[in-house]
Amino acid sequence: MVTRSEIKYIQSLGDKKARDQDGVVVAEGDKIVTELLNESPLQIKKIYATQHWISDNGHLIPDACTVAALEEEELQKLSFLVSPPSVIALVLKPNPPSVNTVHGISLLLDQIQDPGNLGTIIRTCDWFGVSQIVCSADTADAFNPKVIQSSMGSVFRVPISYTDLNQFIQQHPTVPLYAALLDGQPITNVQCKKPCFLLVGNESRGVSEKLLRSGVQKITIPRVGKAESLNAAVASAILLSWLSQSAT
Amino acid sequence: MVTRSEIKYIQSLGDKKARDQDGVVVAEGDKIVTELLNESPLQIKKIYATQHWISDNGHLIPDACTVAALEEEELQKLSFLVSPPSVIALVLKPNPPSVNTVHGISLLLDQIQDPGNLGTIIRTCDWFGVSQIVCSADTADAFNPKVIQSSMGSVFRVPISYTDLNQFIQQHPTVPLYAALLDGQPITNVQCKKPCFLLVGNESRGVSEKLLRSGVQKITIPRVGKAESLNAAVASAILLSWLSQSAT
Repeated sequence: MVTRSEIKYIQSLGDKKARDQDGVVVAEGDKIVTELLNESPLQIKKIYATQHWISDNGHLIPDACTVAALEEEELQKLSFLVSPPSVIALVLKPNPPSVNTVHGISLLLDQIQDPGNLGTIIRTCDWFGVSQIVCSADTADAFNPKVIQSSMGSVFRVPISYTDLNQFIQQHPTVPLYAALLDGQPITNVQCKKPCFLLVGNESRGVSEKLLRSGVQKITIPRVGKAESLNAAVASAILLSWLSQSAT
Repeated sequence: MVTRSEIKYIQSLGDKKARDQDGVVVAEGDKIVTELLNESPLQIKKIYATQHWISDNGHLIPDACTVAALEEEELQKLSFLVSPPSVIALVLKPNPPSVNTVHGISLLLDQIQDPGNLGTIIRTCDWFGVSQIVCSADTADAFNPKVIQSSMGSVFRVPISYTDLNQFIQQHPTVPLYAALLDGQPITNVQCKKPCFLLVGNESRGVSEKLLRSGVQKITIPRVGKAESLNAAVASAILLSWLSQSAT
């Protein structure tokens, strides 16, 4: 059984304000939740799942976590997905990483607004071992249920913080900054040294002019065909694959 | 004014069956429609647009095309988008290309089911000048309104066909076939010769075993981090960027 107030509470976690207030986020689906239980130090407060899921996975659930067995129709009422998942978990949000020390490749995101794109970018960063993602304050929230879903749970593994990007860039004047632009040097010719920053901008407006400090290295993905631009998640992925390959 | 039967007809074009029967597809939004008018040989049968859009763009519209001036609320009723576009066009579907001759890089898609992913892949192919996309019969339809939208109109520029992929591969035994798999040779070390085929599989199941003919070259994107897989559109994009760079 799930109460009306529980349904209301979980649905409220679709809003950033409620998530930030309680420090709680919603993870859905067997893959994401079992990974959290198996591998993550994050605390899971409560699990709502089918009896079948609980029978299969009950041994993974720590004692401190409350479990509610629900029917599929009840799970559907709690879920942000189109098809009801077999399990939904309320997870304590990870603390943002300290952004004072940098190592490896950090991805800087300027105004990425599409949740699906942001989730895909986080998943790609997890694949390439990006050390952290630093987002402008107006980038979509990484703990939006849609972002969690499209990140396939990578949001719980990759350190992500929100800050004034301009200030962040100024605070690290000696770290090479590569900015994705249409008129830069071909990424296929770039040799980068770690630590470094890769800066990717908004889907339609690109990188904000004010972030292009002197010494910035403009980079681009060579185009052969006719598309005017690439999807932000696709552009980030291509640039990360080349940077992580060339980086020394 | 738009009649009820027109609304019903346009909404029916959300289904592949109706699109195939009439050979008509729906293009929405200023960017996609003006590009079609400016650059494409495709025939536009009818345009529904705000008076404002018609005043700005009327000179682009050929005489054979009917134009209806509508209020925003009426356009919303016709549209497949969340926010009403300023223009909607009914376009004659391009003929599928002949797949008998191959040149450059052809992308072979096996069971790509997510329309957003398919659209993003088509847009990326347009960027990299991929010569054609050959889809398995169970891949999402390229002229689904969601695919058209996420392709940003590239679907009207890149030749796309649907066929039995296994048969297609067998018909071109001498063309090198690169298949995206988790256990292949790192793409960063591959030198490919054109013409060639890049085969990318389903989001969760990967490439079908039956398509891996003898002599197939398995390729992979080197992983540093912990994500189990990459989004199909992201993986296609990274592989295309490396293949198109190394290709001779």
